[in-house]
Formats: sequence, structure tokens, C-alpha cells
Amino acid sequence: MEQTFVKQTIALWEQSVKRVTDTFKGFSEEAFQADIAPGRNRPVYMLGHLVAVHDRMLPLLGLGARNWPELDAAFIRTPDRTVADIPSTADLLARFDQVNAQLAAKFAELTPAQWLEKHADVSAEDFAKEPHRNRFNVLLGRTSHIAYHQGQLVWAKK
Amino acid sequence: MEQTFVKQTIALWEQSVKRVTDTFKGFSEEAFQADIAPGRNRPVYMLGHLVAVHDRMLPLLGLGARNWPELDAAFIRTPDRTVADIPSTADLLARFDQVNAQLAAKFAELTPAQWLEKHADVSAEDFAKEPHRNRFNVLLGRTSHIAYHQGQLVWAKK
Repeated sequence: MEQTFVKQTIALWEQSVKRVTDTFKGFSEEAFQADIAPGRNRPVYMLGHLVAVHDRMLPLLGLGARNWPELDAAFIRTPDRTVADIPSTADLLARFDQVNAQLAAKFAELTPAQWLEKHADVSAEDFAKEPHRNRFNVLLGRTSHIAYHQGQLVWAKK
Repeated sequence: MEQTFVKQTIALWEQSVKRVTDTFKGFSEEAFQADIAPGRNRPVYMLGHLVAVHDRMLPLLGLGARNWPELDAAFIRTPDRTVADIPSTADLLARFDQVNAQLAAKFAELTPAQWLEKHADVSAEDFAKEPHRNRFNVLLGRTSHIAYHQGQLVWAKK
């Protein structure tokens, strides 16, 4: 039965990834570079942000090394338009596909018991007290994280 | 083990409900009535929408009758500003607390096996072919639904 809970949660993750990818792929270059609402982020920043956050999931879930730790400077540690030199939208889209495929392949290999193991940002001592700080919680949280930005991206002009 | 997956998913739902409730409770009446971005929804519409969607979860999950089916006319079937006569924000906030408390009480009673039972919008015949159309999937989807609107609400002026 636990396999069903895991499979359905992964299915919502993949559906959320597909939906936001389709949204990004529907934008013109002009749309990618325009603030979604006055003074708010550009879609290209959100794309880079999601690439970086999903890339961080590889070591966080103990599934491998990061591909592009250098993206954090522009897309996680600083707000939009702070770092001028960022990859092209085509490059970021390709990276998003790549990291999501890497995650999907790894997710398929994990057993339900492995989903309940600790993630990398919690110590063994803290995990003993807070056993919900496991891989499954990261999966749930990052799925909601996509939805959060999806709600903003639907307000962008295409 | 399946109990852990259910508990963590309910925990994210409750955390998401609390976060969006806190966001709503931080708005002035003026903020509730102002478009979040030009031509986009007002926070009061999103609040009414979330009340109606969560209220629908009671029969959808087989947990009881709806409290306020009349809200669908203004908050689900039509876009913002279509129906002029809507409840006050104070009233909607009270209803949001009420329906979320009802759901929390019912969620705590369901066993993992009951979470995998079909929801009310799918026939027994279709459920046999598509067993993921169960209560757990509604919980996952509605949690992402809150996050989607949370991403929009953070752009409102307080």
C-alpha cells in the first residue's frame, strides 16, 4: 500500500513539472524578459530559480552531485536582475529538462522505505527527533514550490 | 509505514492552510478589494474561491454535506467581479476557518486504506481502471492548489 502513496506523489510531481515546462515553452523571448507584474520577477528568473532548486534536490536527496552549483548566485541567493550574466533561456530550458529527467530516473529506483530516510540537510541527531525530515517531505514540498510559481507564471503575458 | 506517508501529506496540507490563512489575515479591507496585478483577481475573490473549493472537498471525499453550495456561483463558476453580492471578508474568513477545521477533524479519522478509496466524482467502473482517482489524490491536488494561489497572494499589497 505504501508504494501507492509514493507513486501518486511522484505522479503529481511529474505532472507539475510537465505543466510548468509547457508554460515556459509557450513564452516568447520577449515574454521571458518582461516583469510578470510591475516590479515582480521575470519568467526567465523563475526558470533559472526552478533549475537551481531542482538541481539542489540531487544532493539533498542523496541522489548524486549537482550539475550547476554556480546557478545559485543568480537564481537563489539574489533577487531577479541582480546578476546580469545569466544563461540564455534556451540553455536554461535544456537544463530544466535534463535535471528533471535525472530526478525522474532516480525517483523510480527508490523504495518506500528509502523515501522515509533522512535528507542531506538534517543531521542524524535531529532526524531522530524529527523523522518527517525525510526524502518524501522534500518531494511534497518541492511539488508545492512548482505550483506556487505556476500561479505566478500564468499571469505573464505570452 | 503507509501511515507516515499519509501523516506527512496531511501535515503539508495543514501547513499550507495555515500559511494562506495568515496571509489573508494580514490584509487590510482595502487590500482585499484591490486587484493583485492589473486586471487580475482580488484577494477577496481568492478567499471565497478557496472557501468554496475546500467546502466541496467534504462531499468529494465522502466526509459530509457541503456547508455553502451557493458560493459556487460567485467563486467557482464565474470570474472575479461577475457577482456583486458576496459575503463580507470577515464572514469569508470565518467560513474558511470553519471548513478547514471540519476537514482536519475528518482527515484525522481516515485510515491509510480509506485514503486510497475512490472519491465521489469518479464512478466505480472508472475507478476500477483508474485507481489513483482516490481521496489521497484529492488531498495532494488541493494542497498544490493552495500553493498556486499563495504564489499570487504574496504579490498583493498589504
